[in-house]
Amino acid sequence: MRRFLDWLEEDAPFWDVTTEALIPRGLRVKAVVIAKSSGIIACTEDVFSVLEPLGVKVKEYLASGTQLSPGTIVAEMEGEARTLLVVERTLLNLLMYLSGVATITRAFVEKARKVNPRVRVAATRKTLPGLRALTKRAVAIGGGDTHRLSLSDAILIKDNHIALVGSVAEAVKLAKRKASFAHKVEVEVTSVEDAVEAVRAGADVVMLDNMGVEEVRLCIEKLRELGLRDRVIVEASGGITLDNVEDYAATGVDVISTSAITLRPARVDLSMEVVRN
Amino acid sequence: MRRFLDWLEEDAPFWDVTTEALIPRGLRVKAVVIAKSSGIIACTEDVFSVLEPLGVKVKEYLASGTQLSPGTIVAEMEGEARTLLVVERTLLNLLMYLSGVATITRAFVEKARKVNPRVRVAATRKTLPGLRALTKRAVAIGGGDTHRLSLSDAILIKDNHIALVGSVAEAVKLAKRKASFAHKVEVEVTSVEDAVEAVRAGADVVMLDNMGVEEVRLCIEKLRELGLRDRVIVEASGGITLDNVEDYAATGVDVISTSAITLRPARVDLSMEVVRN
Amino acid sequence: MRRFLDWLEEDAPFWDVTTEALIPRGLRVKAVVIAKSSGIIACTEDVFSVLEPLGVKVKEYLASGTQLSPGTIVAEMEGEARTLLVVERTLLNLLMYLSGVATITRAFVEKARKVNPRVRVAATRKTLPGLRALTKRAVAIGGGDTHRLSLSDAILIKDNHIALVGSVAEAVKLAKRKASFAHKVEVEVTSVEDAVEAVRAGADVVMLDNMGVEEVRLCIEKLRELGLRDRVIVEASGGITLDNVEDYAATGVDVISTSAITLRPARVDLSMEVVRN
Amino acid sequence: MRRFLDWLEEDAPFWDVTTEALIPRGLRVKAVVIAKSSGIIACTEDVFSVLEPLGVKVKEYLASGTQLSPGTIVAEMEGEARTLLVVERTLLNLLMYLSGVATITRAFVEKARKVNPRVRVAATRKTLPGLRALTKRAVAIGGGDTHRLSLSDAILIKDNHIALVGSVAEAVKLAKRKASFAHKVEVEVTSVEDAVEAVRAGADVVMLDNMGVEEVRLCIEKLRELGLRDRVIVEASGGITLDNVEDYAATGVDVISTSAITLRPARVDLSMEVVRN
Amino acid sequence: MRRFLDWLEEDAPFWDVTTEALIPRGLRVKAVVIAKSSGIIACTEDVFSVLEPLGVKVKEYLASGTQLSPGTIVAEMEGEARTLLVVERTLLNLLMYLSGVATITRAFVEKARKVNPRVRVAATRKTLPGLRALTKRAVAIGGGDTHRLSLSDAILIKDNHIALVGSVAEAVKLAKRKASFAHKVEVEVTSVEDAVEAVRAGADVVMLDNMGVEEVRLCIEKLRELGLRDRVIVEASGGITLDNVEDYAATGVDVISTSAITLRPARVDLSMEVVRN
Amino acid sequence: MRRFLDWLEEDAPFWDVTTEALIPRGLRVKAVVIAKSSGIIACTEDVFSVLEPLGVKVKEYLASGTQLSPGTIVAEMEGEARTLLVVERTLLNLLMYLSGVATITRAFVEKARKVNPRVRVAATRKTLPGLRALTKRAVAIGGGDTHRLSLSDAILIKDNHIALVGSVAEAVKLAKRKASFAHKVEVEVTSVEDAVEAVRAGADVVMLDNMGVEEVRLCIEKLRELGLRDRVIVEASGGITLDNVEDYAATGVDVISTSAITLRPARVDLSMEVVRN
Repeated sequence: MRRFLDWLEEDAPFWDVTTEALIPRGLRVKAVVIAKSSGIIACTEDVFSVLEPLGVKVKEYLASGTQLSPGTIVAEMEGEARTLLVVERTLLNLLMYLSGVATITRAFVEKARKVNPRVRVAATRKTLPGLRALTKRAVAIGGGDTHRLSLSDAILIKDNHIALVGSVAEAVKLAKRKASFAHKVEVEVTSVEDAVEAVRAGADVVMLDNMGVEEVRLCIEKLRELGLRDRVIVEASGGITLDNVEDYAATGVDVISTSAITLRPARVDLSMEVVRN
Repeated sequence: MRRFLDWLEEDAPFWDVTTEALIPRGLRVKAVVIAKSSGIIACTEDVFSVLEPLGVKVKEYLASGTQLSPGTIVAEMEGEARTLLVVERTLLNLLMYLSGVATITRAFVEKARKVNPRVRVAATRKTLPGLRALTKRAVAIGGGDTHRLSLSDAILIKDNHIALVGSVAEAVKLAKRKASFAHKVEVEVTSVEDAVEAVRAGADVVMLDNMGVEEVRLCIEKLRELGLRDRVIVEASGGITLDNVEDYAATGVDVISTSAITLRPARVDLSMEVVRN
Repeated sequence: MRRFLDWLEEDAPFWDVTTEALIPRGLRVKAVVIAKSSGIIACTEDVFSVLEPLGVKVKEYLASGTQLSPGTIVAEMEGEARTLLVVERTLLNLLMYLSGVATITRAFVEKARKVNPRVRVAATRKTLPGLRALTKRAVAIGGGDTHRLSLSDAILIKDNHIALVGSVAEAVKLAKRKASFAHKVEVEVTSVEDAVEAVRAGADVVMLDNMGVEEVRLCIEKLRELGLRDRVIVEASGGITLDNVEDYAATGVDVISTSAITLRPARVDLSMEVVRN
Repeated sequence: MRRFLDWLEEDAPFWDVTTEALIPRGLRVKAVVIAKSSGIIACTEDVFSVLEPLGVKVKEYLASGTQLSPGTIVAEMEGEARTLLVVERTLLNLLMYLSGVATITRAFVEKARKVNPRVRVAATRKTLPGLRALTKRAVAIGGGDTHRLSLSDAILIKDNHIALVGSVAEAVKLAKRKASFAHKVEVEVTSVEDAVEAVRAGADVVMLDNMGVEEVRLCIEKLRELGLRDRVIVEASGGITLDNVEDYAATGVDVISTSAITLRPARVDLSMEVVRN
Repeated sequence: MRRFLDWLEEDAPFWDVTTEALIPRGLRVKAVVIAKSSGIIACTEDVFSVLEPLGVKVKEYLASGTQLSPGTIVAEMEGEARTLLVVERTLLNLLMYLSGVATITRAFVEKARKVNPRVRVAATRKTLPGLRALTKRAVAIGGGDTHRLSLSDAILIKDNHIALVGSVAEAVKLAKRKASFAHKVEVEVTSVEDAVEAVRAGADVVMLDNMGVEEVRLCIEKLRELGLRDRVIVEASGGITLDNVEDYAATGVDVISTSAITLRPARVDLSMEVVRN
Repeated sequence: MRRFLDWLEEDAPFWDVTTEALIPRGLRVKAVVIAKSSGIIACTEDVFSVLEPLGVKVKEYLASGTQLSPGTIVAEMEGEARTLLVVERTLLNLLMYLSGVATITRAFVEKARKVNPRVRVAATRKTLPGLRALTKRAVAIGGGDTHRLSLSDAILIKDNHIALVGSVAEAVKLAKRKASFAHKVEVEVTSVEDAVEAVRAGADVVMLDNMGVEEVRLCIEKLRELGLRDRVIVEASGGITLDNVEDYAATGVDVISTSAITLRPARVDLSMEVVRN
């Protein structure tokens, strides 16, 4: 809520000079948010709940996760014309982006699960500053896995850490000793050997970073051979797109993570129409 | 700066549990930011200046607007490994997005100016909440026009306003009477007649909304015939892409505005590498 | 609203130690705000709307712009005695100042319009930090023009800019090339020659700074002679008071701007009286 | 400091569009703040200390309390032209107001002390929201007494409290029992009888509210007669101006409080001049 | 309220991942807060009032100051299960601590008043950062005196001040001359001589710091002998515990201050139980 | 840092009226923080780093984790007397509490590890609002395990969740399906049967809540018998004190969690002494 007020202030540091000039105070109107393209609507619960304290009566809105087609009514509201016109752009900018995230996430999930029904499609921390929580929620709404939400909720040992510590095994052991038992330990590896080393050192998750489909398959096989497959969650990451996600899923990985679902999803097109009461 | 601290806190509400476990306090390292794709770098001045108070020494960075190719060193820094690793993702998430905006903006500008050297390519208010100022700066760095920055700095009469006021002419006159003389009055119109009515009523700018190339051309001709062309800035908006921007530019419009440059630019790929000092 | 809470916290960083000691929790009272001098009331909509979430029922209040005489009831409220007594001073400090701004603005406007019915009386950026938006609103309520609201919403080239750039013409041209088409370009000039140079370079507004009445008249004549008068809005500024505003208005300027309306308006005297329910 | 950044953001929610267009990044200049009228400069320590973190080198500034005449150099700075131009108005708006407060306060103090060398001239809580602390400091710089800083630091029983509690004596006793021993108890009274009742009940301070000079004198005499004068600080308040302050001071009161020193002091006129380095 | 939202955000920077996974949106439940130990409940008015805007209906709660025994129902609420589960820990952490403060304060007050019915038991500024206001309120609820709330509301001259100024008498005089008449002047002294010097110099309060019971008694006698006892409030501080508070009270001091009531009170044990509606 | 400024503002919403009256601006002094009791110092890196931007030169301070005895110098600083005196109480209030947390944590750890060298002593979420991060750091400094930092970083299924979901097994399965793979799943159980059910359902951690020592031992044995012991981390919680921690440790649990280390640790006594330079 407080963040939403900040965003409104960003879009109107003083006031909406157009609306102030043209629309009389006290004019009450209806407004509908309408879909102009298809997709999955996301985060309506978060977004519409902040309008009430601004004096907008939200009569109905679609639950997050609902499928839209062009023309679907997403929400109906009633309130001061001035307020609705000020809120319009911020509301739509948010919903269009977040629904885009949910939509592309669902596309990834559906493709991947066709060949591997238990695979998870996960987001990364490549999100736009200030929008992490909502973006991760949109991923979940699309059926994806949020992965860690921030640097504070799981151990993920990356190349820079390994370089500074010395070796994969040493890093994993250090992490297991020094981090809280409440957090999982994941390691990013770039070779089958490192993956094995990581699992042996006790990693809960290994992330196969930028490996090709074949290499991922080999890695999983190797882990199986060594009897280590069940001890670890295997995640593939790097270069995974809607085009190759089935191939990765077919390798038997547990998790496929991709920034494609948060970085530049096609916006779900929405508009707001205002009608005199 | 304060916003950057908020963003760091979003990515590490407590602390980076990985780095805390693995990297000793006091370990000083060098870090370089390297381009992995080409593009125009943007907002380095804003982004790198916030690192000094965090104890990071920024030795050099490329000025905004510099062309990158894969391998270009964007910045060199020195500081505590812990700080650099915490800052990494937020820094890159910002720079990758903003540089993407600048890059696509420049592509639009170059295409458009080839056929109309005085045309401006402008952004809209379709930006992600919390990132308006930086996004508009990135547009400017790419050679684009920021357009209005918020609802508080220019009059833009849109369909919803006209519907509530009654007519284009009435809305323009009302705006000119009630808004400050310091602000321009722009009107969004959807027909040649409305464009003419708007200019006659005294609009400083008319935005031809979602008109095809041919209709834009007709509109401009009509204004010229009526001797109104020099009194007004003509802006085309809606459905303009890299593919048709030249056609729109060729109509002789003054401004082409598009959300394509802010909504989902291809990220410029950047990474950070850390080396022991 | 959030700012109002900050202000209440400024006046009671802990709590109101007097009221806490003397007034029992749960005592409900009526309170009226009464005018003790005449003037124009301002910003009641902004100020009274923030009381509801604090549990104060505002039963009625005068709309901004209403003329007060001593004894006029400005507002009637009902609520916890403790809350009303805590809020009293902040509420009155705001309303008294803002109503003072509206009142003096209206006096300027009336005098000026008697001799020049289309002239605008505008505020400057000489406002007290933290109160810009409300102060500008109060100016508008008094019939004045807000002028630019901040440094972000119009180009105003001043002496320091011209000194650094080199010449009026150069500065105007640079501004027109580099600033957004959505913003007007205004220049502050101190001589008739500079005014002409500014208009020829394409300025949308020229501000005649600290010119005497006669010089303003000459300047306007000169612009008319040169056929430039219709291309530009002419603003007079500096040293304009209630005593000489008619003389300036009579020169035919479009805008008269003055910090006299925001800097030290006579407060409209208001008090709050509390009565047991 | 943080408040100063808020104020800068108020004046430039995005950026200074003029300076951005005209002044190249990296241009370093000198700037001087010069007095254009006389007065007492105030709060320079607070105001100039916030510029360093913004990259402005403040070479010298006059200490608060220094007497200015037209032409006095208040401060010399060096820094980026862009930064100095953005900061200029906020800096001057603050200093001009606060120095005005200090100047008028000193005038009151000097007049009052001529006839009563131990009298104190005190401010009230009639200050503009957001500026309480700085305004009270400016009062102190002018030689005045800050009086209570907020509702949290002393008991001041006013008419509304007395009306709700029942009587002056009861209110004072209640306050002395329930408020902290660390806070003084002051009562606002409107008659000699109430003043006597208040002192007998144990008030540390009585404020004679809106009494004429003669009534104040009588009140003090009465207290002396009853042997109560030494037990209480006597404050006169209401309707006291530069014209009658000597008369009030001559009555022998301990404190004269007036909103005249904070509400609309004449601004001390200051300007900033920028010179290429 | 705003602080409470900050605290909720501290405990759920993103969201409650457990509740999100397990509890469906829209499930409405009842929740009761139940005492599991005895004590005095504190600050329920402050704490429960912030839940309404979060959508929790608070049906009833005990007033601050009520005595609890194990099993006492402190409050009954109704609302979304998700919200109640997120709020639970922050609510209980606050109430348990604050009620602990009130409980121990009342124990001190009761013991002390048995032997000296007018003595006050006061808190110090040894409170945890961010919790000053609530902690001081809890002290008052327990029957204690808040003492000064912060550094801004009374003069308290301590050893470090005296060392820098030179002597007790000089410090007191300086304070009386330079501080506002609205604030009391208290001095911390460590010997009978200093106490006498402080009172003679005009101190309103002397704090006998770390003196034994006998020394406190001697000091009070000395003041009485010298006819100074009635001019000053005498406070004993340092090393006072539940075990010796009666002895200190019996000396006839006016105030006993102790950090024992704020630093580590035994928590009053509370829990929340949730039941399907 | 920003939080520290908030805390300073809490303790001096205006300014330190004592220091302002007594200590001249510009007086530079040395200050030392000295231990007056023994213990483990904590969070000095966090606390002292915020003083530099306030103009205090911190010459040396002990690293977190250092053992103190009465008289140990914790830190030496140099700066304006005014600043140091304002900062003193907030600094000490923080360090005394946090060092108390570290000290008691180490005591628990040492006792527990004597009989079970691999056992971890973990904190809970029973911390004071606003101090979570620092409190958890202090736990880590004392050798404890932070446990989850907030509701956002691990799944912990508690009694209220189980009641609403239906059964332990169902809750665990739901959590494993719906929560992110990046987070561990922990369940609070109150019987051996539930513990077994939880592990079989796939819980990563079981917390034996309020079980006696004997019951914990039985539970662990049962898990071992069933071959489940290695699949799960076993945590004992509830009623564990310094007196019985060895007994719990001896049962072979992996983790012992207790609010005793955060709720009311004995403060480590510290004071600050100021000396003229």
